[in-house]
Amino acid sequence: MNYKMVGRFLAQILTVEGLFMIPAVIIGYVCGEDNAMQALLWSILIIAVVVAFLRLTCRHAASGFYAKEGLACVGLGWIGMSLFGGLPFFIAREIPNYVDALFEIVSGFTTTGSSILPAVEDMSQCLLYWRSFSHWLGGMGVLVFLLAIVPAGGKGRGYTMHILRAESPGPVVGKLVPKMKDTAKILYLIYILLTVINIIFLLAGHMPAFDAFCTAFGTAGTGGFGIKNDSIAGYSPYLQNVTTVFMLLFGVNFSCYYLLLIRQFKAVFFDEELRLYLGAVLGSTALIVWNLRGFYGSLGETIRHAAFQVSSIITTTGFATTDFDKWPGFSKAIILSLMVLGACAGSTGGGLKCGRALILLKSAHRNIRKVLHPQKVQVVRNNGRMVDEKIVASINAYMAIYVIIVILSFLMISIDGFSVETNLSAVLACFNNIGPGLDAVGPTCNFSAYSIFSKLVLIGDMLAGRLEIFPILILLSRSAWSQR
Amino acid sequence: MNYKMVGRFLAQILTVEGLFMIPAVIIGYVCGEDNAMQALLWSILIIAVVVAFLRLTCRHAASGFYAKEGLACVGLGWIGMSLFGGLPFFIAREIPNYVDALFEIVSGFTTTGSSILPAVEDMSQCLLYWRSFSHWLGGMGVLVFLLAIVPAGGKGRGYTMHILRAESPGPVVGKLVPKMKDTAKILYLIYILLTVINIIFLLAGHMPAFDAFCTAFGTAGTGGFGIKNDSIAGYSPYLQNVTTVFMLLFGVNFSCYYLLLIRQFKAVFFDEELRLYLGAVLGSTALIVWNLRGFYGSLGETIRHAAFQVSSIITTTGFATTDFDKWPGFSKAIILSLMVLGACAGSTGGGLKCGRALILLKSAHRNIRKVLHPQKVQVVRNNGRMVDEKIVASINAYMAIYVIIVILSFLMISIDGFSVETNLSAVLACFNNIGPGLDAVGPTCNFSAYSIFSKLVLIGDMLAGRLEIFPILILLSRSAWSQR
Repeated sequence: MNYKMVGRFLAQILTVEGLFMIPAVIIGYVCGEDNAMQALLWSILIIAVVVAFLRLTCRHAASGFYAKEGLACVGLGWIGMSLFGGLPFFIAREIPNYVDALFEIVSGFTTTGSSILPAVEDMSQCLLYWRSFSHWLGGMGVLVFLLAIVPAGGKGRGYTMHILRAESPGPVVGKLVPKMKDTAKILYLIYILLTVINIIFLLAGHMPAFDAFCTAFGTAGTGGFGIKNDSIAGYSPYLQNVTTVFMLLFGVNFSCYYLLLIRQFKAVFFDEELRLYLGAVLGSTALIVWNLRGFYGSLGETIRHAAFQVSSIITTTGFATTDFDKWPGFSKAIILSLMVLGACAGSTGGGLKCGRALILLKSAHRNIRKVLHPQKVQVVRNNGRMVDEKIVASINAYMAIYVIIVILSFLMISIDGFSVETNLSAVLACFNNIGPGLDAVGPTCNFSAYSIFSKLVLIGDMLAGRLEIFPILILLSRSAWSQR
Repeated sequence: MNYKMVGRFLAQILTVEGLFMIPAVIIGYVCGEDNAMQALLWSILIIAVVVAFLRLTCRHAASGFYAKEGLACVGLGWIGMSLFGGLPFFIAREIPNYVDALFEIVSGFTTTGSSILPAVEDMSQCLLYWRSFSHWLGGMGVLVFLLAIVPAGGKGRGYTMHILRAESPGPVVGKLVPKMKDTAKILYLIYILLTVINIIFLLAGHMPAFDAFCTAFGTAGTGGFGIKNDSIAGYSPYLQNVTTVFMLLFGVNFSCYYLLLIRQFKAVFFDEELRLYLGAVLGSTALIVWNLRGFYGSLGETIRHAAFQVSSIITTTGFATTDFDKWPGFSKAIILSLMVLGACAGSTGGGLKCGRALILLKSAHRNIRKVLHPQKVQVVRNNGRMVDEKIVASINAYMAIYVIIVILSFLMISIDGFSVETNLSAVLACFNNIGPGLDAVGPTCNFSAYSIFSKLVLIGDMLAGRLEIFPILILLSRSAWSQR
């Protein structure tokens, strides 16, 4: 491992984090929240010291940056960012337990949205802002942001690819343009643009500016931290519907937007992943509306709640306008299945991803054909093009690791003695970066009842889920730490 | 598809089934159960008519028997056997609904052991015998039985391999001896021998002869139909412990016994699958005993119940001596995980199988190494030997299909509105051929409350689980039915 190179990246990541805390400080100053503002300033100071230390020790880095270093940068970068990102909550004593503060900020950066706060409205405005902003920063990825703004330097461009691959969600990273740096820039520009449009739509519905920004951050990162105890339920139907639409938009593969910008409408229209995604949304909403007949006052209300919850869960956002834990079994089963499916690859959403599910389905179908005709060569096609066998194999293996991690985590947190439904949905909600689960961790509840050990397991799940397992998993492997 | 060949196999399978109903007729005669005995005789007559019809229409079969025909024989054979095997219950009106009767016999043949009977002791002795015997017949497989007894004929030996492969559980069928026919014979001899020893041990503990036979059938097939309402709980601790040991023995890969017979002790001792299997049993029992401290009167009783339930679930038998649905969450989580794991490949047990889990784990580990060192060739080893990449790929794909089927079934039966825990454990219990689930389908409950539609879904799950998906899945594929 090229430690010094990794250290330099860590320093850059923490610098970005420290800079992004400044708007929160300003909000704290404006609102007169002295205690929280001071906590933020202390955190920035601590970060500055660590950055200075890292810069000093990692001055003379050797060249040589491969997949291993890329994964380690992402894995360690996210862990470092979380360790310092939770400090303001802890120093301000607004979350008195450090593991709880860590849980909260990891939930933020990974865009999970699970909370240990029983009453979110008790928190100061500036820390609420930082909490919601962590979604926005984690959604597209802080390293992708770095790639977009930092000059490439003379060290060759190999590392940008390795990092973008490790941090971006999805089985294949589509190079939009030949240079990865430009891809990162385009992704962030689309991301910023969509966020701004979302804020405008919210303001047009008379949402207070602070609420509009925080809600848009949670929507854009498909995170789901609300700033009200009842999440989005208290806002007007118009604002709920706007959020439904924007959650869905942020769950679409961003390369679709790029294709729209360069007027490749056909490619978008025929994109199989997009069709599966939208089909799943429409189908699930329709089935839930059918299942919920008579549950709410009017059909319109039923459709609004069903569409909102489906969008919120499939994009792994986790906002809520109603308590779906009270829905009948069939609707809950659909919600649980959508938790596993997730949004499109290359979006800010989590989960297994529609693209992966599609290739899993197709490779399953291929295997049936293979059993019937063992001699024929059978290929898996996506959008008409052949999928590399290596990608098919790696997605199948990913699925296996996914199942293994879910089962092991489920076993570990079960020691706390909650119900099977609670534990299983808690693991799925954290690992897929959704937020709320069912039963004792349902939309109206929170994760504070779990033990420290279980919270650490769930923190690991959130990080592994957001970074698609490998950047976290390789940190546990001995050979990753060996000097090359 | 070579329809006539498949038809001839179907005729043979049904002949075997009809012949095996005769002992039940004798028991009915001895016990003076006229109604049930007549139902059995009517069923035999109907089977005889169908066999005669099949023999007449499929007289001149062309040669040509490939993987497709092998799979179809197994898939259709099991469905046919089930359709007629459920007749006695239905004709005797002891199970008035035909779908219920079908559920019961499919649960028998697939060695699931899930029941729709609220009070099993109300059933007549001869039908109870037929119900338990279906476990024994399904455990090792009726087609394997056919292969062992029917002369090979002049048609070439290719078909034996295709059938043995399709019907035997596990990722790789170990050829014990060069001829598949002899392998089938050896498997059945070991099976019969172990069953007889089991019966002797039970009789030595003063179990009534009828109970001993039925319990041994349920144990040997790892089925789990009890003949008492409280399953095995009413028998003495000695009999419970005997059953614990024999359940474990029938969950071991039968090739291990063959290796013991030819004195290859070392190969058995170092077998990695066996070690994982026994390790999982010991580890789970220890953890459950720890978790259950204070739950039962004494440590001895706790160990007895924990070991029994662990053995019953990991081997997918489904006998019970206590209601594990009342256990604390951690123990229930272990039970649920063992449901997925299952016993050894090449045993009568169901589930994913330890051998598959082992290769899944290893290929997951391999993939981590691959990410770290993309250029190196990384292989998966089992018992020191390299595993063919095709097998690794097919196991990964199997896992994917497994997850897809579990999710779809879960969704479909959720329409009935039971709890998530009930539905998920019901699907896992049926698909892995275990028997009892949790909550409303727990060890003291039964499956009768589900709708006809859900029962049909679960019947499909049981068959797909026992036959490891493909023989059932290809019946749904259009190209399987095409004339070659």
